Amino acid sequence: MSKCTVVLAYSGGLDTSCILAWLKEEGYDVITYLANIGQDEDFESARKKAETLGATKVFIEDLRAEFVQDFIWPAVQANAVYEDRYLLGTAIARPCIAQRQVEIARQEGAQFVSHGATGKGNDQIRFELTCYALYPEVIAPWRIPKFYNRFRGRTDLMEYAQCHAPGDLYLMTKNPEDSPNARDLLEIEFKKGVPIKVTNMNEGKSVDSPLDIFSYLNEIGGKHGVGRIDIVENRFIGMKSRGIYETPGGTILLQAHLDIETFTMDKEVRKIKQGLGVKFSELVYNGFWYSPECDFVRQCIAKSQENVEGKVQLSVFKGQVYILGRESPKSLYNEELVSMDVQGDYDPCDASGFIRVNAVRLREHHRLQGFFNTKQ
Amino acid sequence: MSKCTVVLAYSGGLDTSCILAWLKEEGYDVITYLANIGQDEDFESARKKAETLGATKVFIEDLRAEFVQDFIWPAVQANAVYEDRYLLGTAIARPCIAQRQVEIARQEGAQFVSHGATGKGNDQIRFELTCYALYPEVIAPWRIPKFYNRFRGRTDLMEYAQCHAPGDLYLMTKNPEDSPNARDLLEIEFKKGVPIKVTNMNEGKSVDSPLDIFSYLNEIGGKHGVGRIDIVENRFIGMKSRGIYETPGGTILLQAHLDIETFTMDKEVRKIKQGLGVKFSELVYNGFWYSPECDFVRQCIAKSQENVEGKVQLSVFKGQVYILGRESPKSLYNEELVSMDVQGDYDPCDASGFIRVNAVRLREHHRLQGFFNTKQ
Amino acid sequence: MSKCTVVLAYSGGLDTSCILAWLKEEGYDVITYLANIGQDEDFESARKKAETLGATKVFIEDLRAEFVQDFIWPAVQANAVYEDRYLLGTAIARPCIAQRQVEIARQEGAQFVSHGATGKGNDQIRFELTCYALYPEVIAPWRIPKFYNRFRGRTDLMEYAQCHAPGDLYLMTKNPEDSPNARDLLEIEFKKGVPIKVTNMNEGKSVDSPLDIFSYLNEIGGKHGVGRIDIVENRFIGMKSRGIYETPGGTILLQAHLDIETFTMDKEVRKIKQGLGVKFSELVYNGFWYSPECDFVRQCIAKSQENVEGKVQLSVFKGQVYILGRESPKSLYNEELVSMDVQGDYDPCDASGFIRVNAVRLREHHRLQGFFNTKQ
Amino acid sequence: MSKCTVVLAYSGGLDTSCILAWLKEEGYDVITYLANIGQDEDFESARKKAETLGATKVFIEDLRAEFVQDFIWPAVQANAVYEDRYLLGTAIARPCIAQRQVEIARQEGAQFVSHGATGKGNDQIRFELTCYALYPEVIAPWRIPKFYNRFRGRTDLMEYAQCHAPGDLYLMTKNPEDSPNARDLLEIEFKKGVPIKVTNMNEGKSVDSPLDIFSYLNEIGGKHGVGRIDIVENRFIGMKSRGIYETPGGTILLQAHLDIETFTMDKEVRKIKQGLGVKFSELVYNGFWYSPECDFVRQCIAKSQENVEGKVQLSVFKGQVYILGRESPKSLYNEELVSMDVQGDYDPCDASGFIRVNAVRLREHHRLQGFFNTKQ
Repeated sequence: MSKCTVVLAYSGGLDTSCILAWLKEEGYDVITYLANIGQDEDFESARKKAETLGATKVFIEDLRAEFVQDFIWPAVQANAVYEDRYLLGTAIARPCIAQRQVEIARQEGAQFVSHGATGKGNDQIRFELTCYALYPEVIAPWRIPKFYNRFRGRTDLMEYAQCHAPGDLYLMTKNPEDSPNARDLLEIEFKKGVPIKVTNMNEGKSVDSPLDIFSYLNEIGGKHGVGRIDIVENRFIGMKSRGIYETPGGTILLQAHLDIETFTMDKEVRKIKQGLGVKFSELVYNGFWYSPECDFVRQCIAKSQENVEGKVQLSVFKGQVYILGRESPKSLYNEELVSMDVQGDYDPCDASGFIRVNAVRLREHHRLQGFFNTKQ
Repeated sequence: MSKCTVVLAYSGGLDTSCILAWLKEEGYDVITYLANIGQDEDFESARKKAETLGATKVFIEDLRAEFVQDFIWPAVQANAVYEDRYLLGTAIARPCIAQRQVEIARQEGAQFVSHGATGKGNDQIRFELTCYALYPEVIAPWRIPKFYNRFRGRTDLMEYAQCHAPGDLYLMTKNPEDSPNARDLLEIEFKKGVPIKVTNMNEGKSVDSPLDIFSYLNEIGGKHGVGRIDIVENRFIGMKSRGIYETPGGTILLQAHLDIETFTMDKEVRKIKQGLGVKFSELVYNGFWYSPECDFVRQCIAKSQENVEGKVQLSVFKGQVYILGRESPKSLYNEELVSMDVQGDYDPCDASGFIRVNAVRLREHHRLQGFFNTKQ
Repeated sequence: MSKCTVVLAYSGGLDTSCILAWLKEEGYDVITYLANIGQDEDFESARKKAETLGATKVFIEDLRAEFVQDFIWPAVQANAVYEDRYLLGTAIARPCIAQRQVEIARQEGAQFVSHGATGKGNDQIRFELTCYALYPEVIAPWRIPKFYNRFRGRTDLMEYAQCHAPGDLYLMTKNPEDSPNARDLLEIEFKKGVPIKVTNMNEGKSVDSPLDIFSYLNEIGGKHGVGRIDIVENRFIGMKSRGIYETPGGTILLQAHLDIETFTMDKEVRKIKQGLGVKFSELVYNGFWYSPECDFVRQCIAKSQENVEGKVQLSVFKGQVYILGRESPKSLYNEELVSMDVQGDYDPCDASGFIRVNAVRLREHHRLQGFFNTKQ
Repeated sequence: MSKCTVVLAYSGGLDTSCILAWLKEEGYDVITYLANIGQDEDFESARKKAETLGATKVFIEDLRAEFVQDFIWPAVQANAVYEDRYLLGTAIARPCIAQRQVEIARQEGAQFVSHGATGKGNDQIRFELTCYALYPEVIAPWRIPKFYNRFRGRTDLMEYAQCHAPGDLYLMTKNPEDSPNARDLLEIEFKKGVPIKVTNMNEGKSVDSPLDIFSYLNEIGGKHGVGRIDIVENRFIGMKSRGIYETPGGTILLQAHLDIETFTMDKEVRKIKQGLGVKFSELVYNGFWYSPECDFVRQCIAKSQENVEGKVQLSVFKGQVYILGRESPKSLYNEELVSMDVQGDYDPCDASGFIRVNAVRLREHHRLQGFFNTKQ
């Protein structure tokens, strides 16, 4: 009798190795799939481990360029930040990884996909909503009592190792206290709201492909300890959890994009787009990348970015990003209009009418409320 | 014939000294009013200058405690930030200054209030909306052609001095590059969303009155170069302008408050309150502190802060604030619930149903859109 | 051995009678609970049926006054409408019914509560979120395969009867085509955003307790065929379903409240409150009445209603409510200010400055976009 | 010496006739411009009057088709309603009229445009923001003391006539009490969120051009007294005013569009789009049709309408619109999924997990708040 096939998102670690072995035991043919989205990993050793454990087939997919361009860039356009602080690094990676896994499952005729995400976290949702949106069936061992009752001890150990070893927590960023005493000066050029070139103004070096730009900003940000946070966050399932994250390149891009966006975007468009960005962040955090609403919001945000273009100069130093200046052919900043010395196309007397009309409502309110009566 | 009386918001500088002289020339009795909201100023020399220039009466009002408690604390509760970056320092000061000026005008029987804010800026609006809301008539010399045509040359000079001397721009904060190489460790205690105690954990020193807390955080933040920004912002009147600001204490408080709030506030309340905070920031920036809507939003935000209580530990170093930990008697963080090792009051299997029901809509969408057809 | 006790929300109908019998079969002691929230029901016959089927105890609770005051009145204050059309009648009843059921369960020492809501609907969620928020365990037979596999046939029949008999669909409202040819004239008086008195201006009759007001408006609205809708709506679980509803009294109150609110509430407060009302409606629809966010929103909305006071005159005729006029001691309508004949405290010339300053941004935009170039 | 030229928006009435005469007196060459947007007007008699009063040139422009397609259709897509009640008829007409006036001014080399809107209303703003966005200078006689001091008496009279003659108020709609006792049955077909065909199911008649559709719905709606409202509204300048409006065709379209939209649009997209629609309505009311933000919002809304397609059946009777049914090739309504009899692609047991996970947060909240302690 022909066995069912599962495509397992495999990391090479203890956790998903257990799952691989267990799925085999349960009678499945297992295809492992490991996505390279830029993490520091020994892919070949993972391949060997998978083969040793009996994987029918091993896929190692380089998704780095796709990840930057199709997933990170829209988040840059959105100024995506969850709950005012979290830059969504992990959250954005999940749909990228899962959509390729679904493609492999379809191509290989697999009946199931599987993953190692646990039953209380966000990643199970991000992973599975993508899968369900795109169709296959999911096996989530950490929600199957037969599996988790057997392996719980092992997890305890791993979790312990993971949570109580703060020295290892940050992989990309230096401790700002140990970071260089000299700053790096960068110029980032944007077009349609995404970076198209980064130049190191000290060294003259520049990069211009999406992947090179993002890698280079991760390198510079990491060197200066940019983008570390220790937060409490609200998971989709309603628990609060503690998160410790590092997003060096993302933090630099967020600051630079905020700056060029405000420089080139109309104030009222910005306000509407800010609301859409908050929505986008929440959707991505909760795993709804492949949803009609996220699609809609992404398209609206992309629309807003048509004139977000120009160069931002900034310095990176001891964990901080300082914006130094900006220029743009699409700038809405009009030096003459705003100048104290020149009147420009603006009559200061108009402000009197503007203020008095804005006050009509306030005067009525205070007339009726008798403000001073209650105050005195 | 009895002359009309004006209460002039007077800084002691060249600008408002011109206005004082000119108002006298125009036949007004001028009462000067200088508010101490914590700025570094020689108040006595300003008093003498005003008297020399012919002020009928001179008021120097210490509003520092009131400013912190009635204006800054609500902004802390709101996580008030305009356009994602500006912490609204100046914007919050205006209604505080203006409301006292109106009280003086009423008490002294003055017919007018006046100020030195220029005709293209935000401050004229913040100032005058407060005045109009609370009733008196305003004289705004920088919008009166007779005045500004005469004094424009002088302004040009002052503005030039002000804008082209970057060395002087930052008054409270050190350059992070020149800041100490050792961090300060602080613990900030909150109750109902406002700080009630700050302890320096290195030195053991602690302060607990609102004014002392805010002054001390400004001092520590300033010493480490925290809270400098160089931004483009959108003025209420629709111009973009460049702003260079420093908010050392405010930046520390924002980070600490964000942290304790997320720790103690329900996720969905937080989301609604975040929207109200954005609205509050916009209202304050635009000068609507004394408006029915700002009053309403402030009351709603205050309501949301009832359980925002606890202690946040943080370090301040080279321009950055790092949250290190938090604790609270009102914490909604449930270690057992979120733990990997313990099931707590949560069955991981429930997540399967949760995810599948969330996917109902997505599956329908993709069934109808034929996602893969269009992709492949 | 002592058996477990269940409190069952019992309607007297076939559906919950099956559940009662089945729960007994399964070994439970069953207490039935039937809430009177104003529906047309033979409560005594339901009591007898429950006793015959072996209920240990029978509770018939008159919640009508509580339902109107604590549940409907906040919805009136919120102008609660889901997806622009549905007035949430059923959705508001669920938490009212469920909270009393939980109280009975606690008082009787029952281990479980149970209900007859089906597995694809909204009511199971509204019911159970209230229960879980307030603690007990729930048995939902329509989600238990053992139950629904056995009883499905019966349901099919009932559902068929329910869905394919349009003549019976509307219980409270007359067909507008058959409604009287003479209108009724009502005056509704509000205080703090809730009705305190309704007077029929034709007959002079008036009522003033919450329950009498709501019943009377249902009677008048029903007589004139007000408040029937046939809609498609989006259930919380992501399905679209068709809903046919009638809300005669609620529709009259919505129109009257909208009117008095706009008359007495500041424009900008109204805008913020409108957003909170949309949120409230969504929360109630989805079953989150007893949630921290719904509680927060309700309190904010109640705050906004402090001056919503006055009288609205309206006519009810052939399915429509026509507002005829309004008056209020807290009116923000200033006849002199808005008059064409009198200048009032407003200088028309100020509008020039107001408009020109509002246009600053637009002119800049069009200067840069070269509007006419692209158009012509 | 060559005189300056003004293009005056001319109605043929007393008001703008005074303005025309006065502008001539002031030394301007006056070109009159009268837009036909479907109002009931004797255009030829207006032309003669203008010529008699000395207009240099007379433009009578048929903008009806353009008005329906470029202005009303986007409002239909948006479900545009201001402050929950006003369908924005007048507000939408202003930018349509003004943009053509600006084109005439440019074509004729005129230096100014002028209009008869008064100094306290919304129309002056709607008119002038369009003009300023598109460039020319405006003369607003009702804000020029020289003009309004002279003509005020006359206005008083007109205003009196206009406001105190309720019999004349409604021009398009019959009094519902006098409307036919037989309903009309219509089917409206939509594509991309705009109507493409209307069929009268009684008579079999159908129309399919935008102008014909809108005219026909105005006729049917008018015949049955649909779309009359008497409201208090908040003007942009902060005053409350009373408005009496009739929008027969717009009311039918709003109901039909709401229905087909909910039928074919994803629930979460709908929620975001609803917020954009509220924003759109406010922008249009305030006169910002030609603004970057309104442009942005319109494009986002249009994007959301791609699948809003299908047919809605409705009846029109005694002032009311009743939706009877709908069908669509893009329907997201899945009869099998929602059915009570068939399980479809949905397992009712999943709802248990869905509900329990949604309750995690609520249980935590109530555990901490000790809900029953405070209640009992």
